[in-house]
Amino acid sequence: MPKNGISPTRKEDYPEWYQQVVRAGELAESSPVRGCMVIKPHGFAIWEAMQKILDGMFKATGHKNAYFPLFIPLSYLEQEAKHVEGFAKECAVVTHHRLELDEDGRLVPKGKLEEPLVVRPTSETIIGSMYAKWIQSWRDLPVLINQWANVVRWEMRPRVFLRTAEFLWQEGHTAHATEEEAIEETLQMLDIYATFAEQDLAIPVWKGPKPSSERFPGAVETYSIEAMMQDGKALQAGTSHFLGQNFAKAQNIKFTDKTSQEAFCWTTSWGVSTRLIGGLIMTHADDDGLVLPPRIAPEQIILLPIYRSDEDQNAVLNCCHKLKEQLENSQWRDESIRATIDDRDIRGGDKVWQHIKQGVPLRVEIGPRDLAAGTVSIARRDEPPKQKLTMTLEDFPKNAANLLESVQTNMLKKAVDFRENNSSTLNKKDEVSEFFDSKQDTSGFAYVHVADDPAVAEALDPLKVTVRCAPMDWDEEPGKCLYTGKSVLRRSVISRSY
Amino acid sequence: MPKNGISPTRKEDYPEWYQQVVRAGELAESSPVRGCMVIKPHGFAIWEAMQKILDGMFKATGHKNAYFPLFIPLSYLEQEAKHVEGFAKECAVVTHHRLELDEDGRLVPKGKLEEPLVVRPTSETIIGSMYAKWIQSWRDLPVLINQWANVVRWEMRPRVFLRTAEFLWQEGHTAHATEEEAIEETLQMLDIYATFAEQDLAIPVWKGPKPSSERFPGAVETYSIEAMMQDGKALQAGTSHFLGQNFAKAQNIKFTDKTSQEAFCWTTSWGVSTRLIGGLIMTHADDDGLVLPPRIAPEQIILLPIYRSDEDQNAVLNCCHKLKEQLENSQWRDESIRATIDDRDIRGGDKVWQHIKQGVPLRVEIGPRDLAAGTVSIARRDEPPKQKLTMTLEDFPKNAANLLESVQTNMLKKAVDFRENNSSTLNKKDEVSEFFDSKQDTSGFAYVHVADDPAVAEALDPLKVTVRCAPMDWDEEPGKCLYTGKSVLRRSVISRSY
Repeated sequence: MPKNGISPTRKEDYPEWYQQVVRAGELAESSPVRGCMVIKPHGFAIWEAMQKILDGMFKATGHKNAYFPLFIPLSYLEQEAKHVEGFAKECAVVTHHRLELDEDGRLVPKGKLEEPLVVRPTSETIIGSMYAKWIQSWRDLPVLINQWANVVRWEMRPRVFLRTAEFLWQEGHTAHATEEEAIEETLQMLDIYATFAEQDLAIPVWKGPKPSSERFPGAVETYSIEAMMQDGKALQAGTSHFLGQNFAKAQNIKFTDKTSQEAFCWTTSWGVSTRLIGGLIMTHADDDGLVLPPRIAPEQIILLPIYRSDEDQNAVLNCCHKLKEQLENSQWRDESIRATIDDRDIRGGDKVWQHIKQGVPLRVEIGPRDLAAGTVSIARRDEPPKQKLTMTLEDFPKNAANLLESVQTNMLKKAVDFRENNSSTLNKKDEVSEFFDSKQDTSGFAYVHVADDPAVAEALDPLKVTVRCAPMDWDEEPGKCLYTGKSVLRRSVISRSY
Repeated sequence: MPKNGISPTRKEDYPEWYQQVVRAGELAESSPVRGCMVIKPHGFAIWEAMQKILDGMFKATGHKNAYFPLFIPLSYLEQEAKHVEGFAKECAVVTHHRLELDEDGRLVPKGKLEEPLVVRPTSETIIGSMYAKWIQSWRDLPVLINQWANVVRWEMRPRVFLRTAEFLWQEGHTAHATEEEAIEETLQMLDIYATFAEQDLAIPVWKGPKPSSERFPGAVETYSIEAMMQDGKALQAGTSHFLGQNFAKAQNIKFTDKTSQEAFCWTTSWGVSTRLIGGLIMTHADDDGLVLPPRIAPEQIILLPIYRSDEDQNAVLNCCHKLKEQLENSQWRDESIRATIDDRDIRGGDKVWQHIKQGVPLRVEIGPRDLAAGTVSIARRDEPPKQKLTMTLEDFPKNAANLLESVQTNMLKKAVDFRENNSSTLNKKDEVSEFFDSKQDTSGFAYVHVADDPAVAEALDPLKVTVRCAPMDWDEEPGKCLYTGKSVLRRSVISRSY
């Protein structure tokens, strides 16, 4: 048995540790197509768990799902000038619609398209073109639609889950009659993302507007949730954009208001992606592999029968099945508990380590001795592998929900503490330089007064640091920008980032 | 109020009726991208309902979901010769990975790829290449994976839901140690499709092997479910393929068996798509629009409050909310009943017709008179719009499950009767010619003895008829092929088709 489940450890080589956690957790791997990943069943089950919760939150706030084309005509991208600059760079371009075998048996593209098509990097333009047709009157508003889809952005330096050419995401696109309503929607979705991150993924986030230099191309305001990874870098884990009337004007999304006046709609868009799985890993995984918060663990409890004789096997398996049934009849956070029995005929050590590496929140071993004593031995994934808890067979199912709640809460607390320990409130330029100089590899968050000004980005550039967002939940604390001297109302988070 | 909800009627112009049902039901519409559809919220909610049931059936039989790349390198398609012939024809081909603005502000494709990429028309090759890496030993088998994804097949004559360039589907891909096991899997999935079609979609299907001329490119055997549409044509509504070792050999998917011998795997693939929505429409919709079987209706019961005065409004809405709660606390087929209140401020007639056109199974009107009488007025979508049923406010929630069951059962029965009335068991070539001659527009199924022989396809071609499948559930009934004289064990279904 290795000293650690994962080699190298986080300290030894953080980027390589990340790759090894993904591999050992059987989450994903790279594919023969450059920059595209294969999401393996365990990784995809985590994504499905995320989808289920988010989809419920979207629908509870009045959104409906729909599906729009994968392809976008070039001319659509040309309509919104800023959007083109930001997005029309690294895209997959379809130029032909046929393949023919040549005399050497090689396939050759044929049937050149009159207008090339871009594989959607995001769908504002194609969805907007439909909204322009659908929306006529104030009675048609608001339009509140979400799409679960794949998107493609050609990446020169792909990294599984964090930056891949193709990834899965959801993109919400809404249209409103008034500016206020659209801003309210933008902030509502930002809140949903923050709640989901903290309550379900146990990832604490700062949420707030990004500086204009970091805005979504074409947006009036971009809000993000920013999480600290275990190397101290920030991960932008979700964004919500107030698009003003920019896209509506470019695409002619108009409506007749109650006074019979024609007006442009106010639109928003917002999204999270499979990048969240990368954030989950880098927030919670340890040197033994993945650690999953119970809320999105495909299996919350794994029951591990241990036996040698046939007689023991029967008794132990019976007990496991009974426990499984009791657990599945119990509820935690309004859902049935998810318990699985692993009775595969493989070495016990390998089996246990597989579940450790896959991050299962609770492992329960049941052998003949436990049966005799009427107990089970429980290991929490958020505690060291050898640390066990003993409970009676009667008590365990009754306490399973509490245990899951405790793991979930403890994971959030650990992540909050980690962020706290790696953040500093700084008031001088020198302090900022020092903070990031001394943390070349590990980084961290600095909370500082900075203005929304290009001069700030310029000043931070040599430190390889950017302004992440200005957290809205923080109390107002007026001060002067460290780099421009301008007055600002609140501190911002500055950090290295993914 | 129009005589019918849909114009033209089925009799007047069937293809146009279909388009109008899709439009009036707010299911989908064509997009600016040739051949690609936009699936609107109501259409997508139906797809989600289908996905939920199918996904549960797949998981209950041991399958897991995963996700594989959208793009396939050309060289992968070249590996399996027959597959190339069948599939490499009309595909979207990505040749560039960048766009640049030229001096006229037009976007131009740049960054030519060394090897073009095909947008997946189906994923056997890319998934097989991963299986070749994942599978080493018999212990790794079976691999039972499904993917929900978009695929693209360039279509010259697109038709919404039935034949679109991009469509949504699921594709299962499994690998097994033995031929028997792979055949068993192929047939299990065919059974799941047939059960789903009949029990959930209320679409009766014939399931069985297709003739070799109609096989999936590269398959050893293709099984399908075939449904009769209301114009008498067949719709292939799902397929399950036994791929033998063809793909395994082309892609080197090998394993070491229990005796340490190396062997090729036996693989299968199976899929259904958004085409099912087309099948649903053409099986059940009538001249008033969509008719949804309750099992996949996003809203099973729509509650329609009717009032004029504020006082009535309060009483009526209170009653609706109480009913909704009672309904949602009731179960039908192990799920909570889905009930919605429509209290939008629009004309009552328009409102009712919208729900008729969208196919909601039960419409319940509640006005002051009903309140006074303590009753509700119920309209079933599978009966004429004016036909109403009165029940007491107490009885209705208690009987809602029975009503839904009755609608579901009645819809299946109607469809079975329709198929029966438009099918004939024929024993002579002349009878076949006559049957299809007299049904130039409406078609129908003929049940005949035909061999799996190219001569049959040739003989049927002038009639624009093909062999759909040889239903496996039918009793053996040996006979001679009408066209080749060869002995065959069972009759086949021959028909015109989509």
